[in-house]
Amino acid sequence: MKLQDYIRTIPDFPKKGILFRDITTLLSEQKAFRKAIDDLAKLLKNKKIDYIVSAEARGFIFGGALAYKLNCGFVPVRKPGKLPYKTYCHSYALEYGKDSLEIHKDAFSKGAKILVLDDLLATGGTALALAKLVEKLGGSVEAIAFLIELKEIGGRKKMKEYSVYSLIKF
Amino acid sequence: MKLQDYIRTIPDFPKKGILFRDITTLLSEQKAFRKAIDDLAKLLKNKKIDYIVSAEARGFIFGGALAYKLNCGFVPVRKPGKLPYKTYCHSYALEYGKDSLEIHKDAFSKGAKILVLDDLLATGGTALALAKLVEKLGGSVEAIAFLIELKEIGGRKKMKEYSVYSLIKF
Repeated sequence: MKLQDYIRTIPDFPKKGILFRDITTLLSEQKAFRKAIDDLAKLLKNKKIDYIVSAEARGFIFGGALAYKLNCGFVPVRKPGKLPYKTYCHSYALEYGKDSLEIHKDAFSKGAKILVLDDLLATGGTALALAKLVEKLGGSVEAIAFLIELKEIGGRKKMKEYSVYSLIKF
Repeated sequence: MKLQDYIRTIPDFPKKGILFRDITTLLSEQKAFRKAIDDLAKLLKNKKIDYIVSAEARGFIFGGALAYKLNCGFVPVRKPGKLPYKTYCHSYALEYGKDSLEIHKDAFSKGAKILVLDDLLATGGTALALAKLVEKLGGSVEAIAFLIELKEIGGRKKMKEYSVYSLIKF
């Protein structure tokens, strides 16, 4: 089973010229979804992870499943105003514009070992924002992992200080 | 371990007079998150589920983890304009206003056995919208399950035609 075969490519979404990699066709195929989570766990088997940190919304699907598989906690990072308690905010450029993300200030203790997980590595803006928020809380980014990496965009080059993993390369 | 103890209550969020039930304190506590997923799986052990259908964003965390645990597919339902392929849309009233949700038209085949899963049962608007979208695609709603049920709001009364489950009652 090749996970890449379960990703549907949709041209001109969300705007003209973009080849959108649609993960919903992987998620709905039980064996592919399971293999994706198991393969991510294998990539990270030498890492000790206390918490997975992911951004809404697609990141939550993999974050929840992998946290269950790895027996660790899950910390959601959300758009401004969505988290109910005290937060830190980080603003950043992303592939199709600009955005801000928030994390609860008490999400984990200093020194916690964190996996930053997202579905897609394009420019790397979202993942780097997650890493910055983790470090603001005193967490240690043990690894940054993605289901899909768009190699031509070169987002990986921006995260040389981290251990970066991806399952599917386009 | 009482799962209820891991839910943080935040007064006046998102607006005055609302007691917001914050699940992030359960998610970040590995044993509580694991128990929540395992207990949901136990509640549903006599159901044959092909796909879990959940709405963004918080629903994705539990949907992804429980789909992994139950060995089934996961189908995300999103706000309008977020899903890249052809969709059906359903508009509905929710606790703090009005909203619309979309599902991919080809998310699953007719007759598929579906679990609708959400983190919180308040008015029931979101879960009923999910059930309607499932039925529009010809799916069979085998059960509707929630992590938390706010009993006083009485959302359960609106879904008498379904099998409804919840883990934590407030």
